[in-house]
Amino acid sequence: MKFVTGTGRKLTTYQEIAGGGRNNAAAVHGAVHLLRDMGGLAFFTLRMARGAVQCVCAPDVLPEGLCEECCVELSGTVREEPRAPGGVEIAVESITVLSRPAAPMPVSLGRGPLRLNLDTELALRPVVLRRLKERAVFKVQEGLVRSFRDYLTGEGFTEVHTPKIVRAGAEGGSNIFKLDYFGKKAYLAQSPQFYKQTMVGVFERVFEVGPVFRAEKHATPRHLNEYTGLDFEMGYIDSFYDVIEMEAGYLRHAMKLLADEYAGELELLGAELPAADRIPCLRFDDAKRLAAEKYGYKIRDPYDLEPEEEIRIGQYAKEELGSDFLFVTHYPSKKRPFYAMDDPDGPKYTLSFDLLFRGMEVTTGGQRVHDYAAQVAKMEDRGMDPAEFESYLMIHRHGMPPHGGLGIGLERLTMKLCGLDNVRYASLFPRDRSRLEP
Amino acid sequence: MKFVTGTGRKLTTYQEIAGGGRNNAAAVHGAVHLLRDMGGLAFFTLRMARGAVQCVCAPDVLPEGLCEECCVELSGTVREEPRAPGGVEIAVESITVLSRPAAPMPVSLGRGPLRLNLDTELALRPVVLRRLKERAVFKVQEGLVRSFRDYLTGEGFTEVHTPKIVRAGAEGGSNIFKLDYFGKKAYLAQSPQFYKQTMVGVFERVFEVGPVFRAEKHATPRHLNEYTGLDFEMGYIDSFYDVIEMEAGYLRHAMKLLADEYAGELELLGAELPAADRIPCLRFDDAKRLAAEKYGYKIRDPYDLEPEEEIRIGQYAKEELGSDFLFVTHYPSKKRPFYAMDDPDGPKYTLSFDLLFRGMEVTTGGQRVHDYAAQVAKMEDRGMDPAEFESYLMIHRHGMPPHGGLGIGLERLTMKLCGLDNVRYASLFPRDRSRLEP
Repeated sequence: MKFVTGTGRKLTTYQEIAGGGRNNAAAVHGAVHLLRDMGGLAFFTLRMARGAVQCVCAPDVLPEGLCEECCVELSGTVREEPRAPGGVEIAVESITVLSRPAAPMPVSLGRGPLRLNLDTELALRPVVLRRLKERAVFKVQEGLVRSFRDYLTGEGFTEVHTPKIVRAGAEGGSNIFKLDYFGKKAYLAQSPQFYKQTMVGVFERVFEVGPVFRAEKHATPRHLNEYTGLDFEMGYIDSFYDVIEMEAGYLRHAMKLLADEYAGELELLGAELPAADRIPCLRFDDAKRLAAEKYGYKIRDPYDLEPEEEIRIGQYAKEELGSDFLFVTHYPSKKRPFYAMDDPDGPKYTLSFDLLFRGMEVTTGGQRVHDYAAQVAKMEDRGMDPAEFESYLMIHRHGMPPHGGLGIGLERLTMKLCGLDNVRYASLFPRDRSRLEP
Repeated sequence: MKFVTGTGRKLTTYQEIAGGGRNNAAAVHGAVHLLRDMGGLAFFTLRMARGAVQCVCAPDVLPEGLCEECCVELSGTVREEPRAPGGVEIAVESITVLSRPAAPMPVSLGRGPLRLNLDTELALRPVVLRRLKERAVFKVQEGLVRSFRDYLTGEGFTEVHTPKIVRAGAEGGSNIFKLDYFGKKAYLAQSPQFYKQTMVGVFERVFEVGPVFRAEKHATPRHLNEYTGLDFEMGYIDSFYDVIEMEAGYLRHAMKLLADEYAGELELLGAELPAADRIPCLRFDDAKRLAAEKYGYKIRDPYDLEPEEEIRIGQYAKEELGSDFLFVTHYPSKKRPFYAMDDPDGPKYTLSFDLLFRGMEVTTGGQRVHDYAAQVAKMEDRGMDPAEFESYLMIHRHGMPPHGGLGIGLERLTMKLCGLDNVRYASLFPRDRSRLEP
């Protein structure tokens, strides 16, 4: 009888090769990313799980018909080669071909920049993502998520998983997907809002990383119809600045992790990490006014920030306050949802905020109403029927601590960090009005 | 102007109190979980983010009308008290009430076991989850997820986020939810199968933790219509035993983490950790036969395992092989999806497996077809139209390494680990045929 013990074989990683394995034997696997034949010797780039290494191979070692996207296992010697990317190459002694493609690539994965229009590129996404630069975006994204979890776990948060099929939307409005649930009408969750608040009553501090669905009808470079939300919610806050401080702490932690462990990908992308150790906060009204004054334009919508205005305010933050990030606080109550807590010092405003990063909103958060009577009153003021929200209001009725939280759009954060001009490039397989596949 | 630096205030945690803070001053917050008045002194249990601590309070310190589920901040001195749970209590010097409930709890959170029927209990879920035992399940669940990510990250896997709104189901059959996507027909993903395979071409090894949707019509104690999938997929495997070894490694790592960091919750639940350092593997046919022989029943379905049969095979694994876990390998091709690789030594069987844990399937996995021609042929054999899967087959056409992977049902794993008798208790807010809220 066979028994397994959970111990696998260990191959040499790119990090070990690049990090100091000179003149060592290496046994590696990967895909032939870019193949060149130069005067007898064959050179190819081997794409590994992370990184890519130059390999050089004598004609008698080269398997017949070796082509790009062949998957191979090879052994050889790592040696210094200043002209190779990373400063090393593998002198290949033997190659085994594990699999061969059935057809050549529709676009080159290893040569020059990709000059395709958005539609063509996204249609080819399953293979285009194999390009080193394209995949680097998602390695950076991994770092953003990993640091989110690590930071919050260290701060006493518990990770939760809440339902995405729901009976009622948390955010209201018409941007919600409907589905048939065994003959009943159901929706896809616009946010884990009700559930994460509920879980504050259980664990005090919770976070969730999961899909968020928005049936937005507009097609812009900053909207997706399905995105990944980094959400957290925390109890026993003194004010919504506790939530802001927690996000600032996360960003600081994330930028450090990226600098320490993702330098290769950031360099490949030409991405510059923002400073996150001291982030300014401006009230909504002040931010609007200061940007309008400095850049000489007229405020059109007094209750919200238009995308163009976010860009201007971001520019103001950079030029006047020296920061890529800016917390904009005290949004008008009119534009915030029914669970947002109004400011007792000026109830037309809420104890809420957005985080702008390089001129784009990447986070919305704030303090929530925790008192039952206050929440019911606010719902009634808005013409909502509290009876419709019975299982949500159960938590207020039976006691909730003062609490608040936020939601970060992972793809937007990735986009601005990597300097991409369309949020679709920060989603592996983006969903927009016209795109359901790949 | 205000600047934030990401540094919050730090309160005493339960771990610090229980771990050795005797005779120290403590400032803590939490909810009054269970309140008793005993001859002048008030005793109450303070429910904290993790753990609960006994507090004792003189009448003059007790705020007027303090009741269960009041949220409070208090300061006092930690002292030894052998009769208190955890061996310590806080002698309270001052209490501030932060919030009060509007109505008493419909069920006691702190007294005795909860004796409600399933429907009533699940309807009260938002507050019932505040009970120490109920919430302990989800702390253990957090540990299972955390160790999954940590282990795989250490093994060179990249975390990915793939779409849940899809144009076609990966698993086929009728158990798929339909939705309207801007006038087009779309579905909720039954698994991240196509996408995780695609990402093997990009990162070699990937994992995803996310919701999985199954429109199963049957109501059983082991089915949910939305659950959390722990999925991974890995390239450059020698055989599907590499996938099995990886899962065994994860389980070993998870059990160690739970033993080290979740002992309090496991004790509260009376849960016993399984050994995971040596897991037996049996072929599907052998497992069926051995269990049927030992327990004297007749095999009814030669192509699949019925739930009753899984229980018997699990019993066999425990009694004869001394293991709570059993890998059952080589499932009949007939019952496995089109992307499963057939066994070249016996093509009626696949290079696939399930993991049974205490008599229940908690994982399905195996090696996948990576060759383009072979995948197209297998689809045609099954009467499928390859043109319908163009963007999926793109990865095979342009080259894929030999690869395989698996999907673990998080709630089932949690259920069996915690000794629960219904998978609904291992989901915060379960979705079944009749349940769309809370």
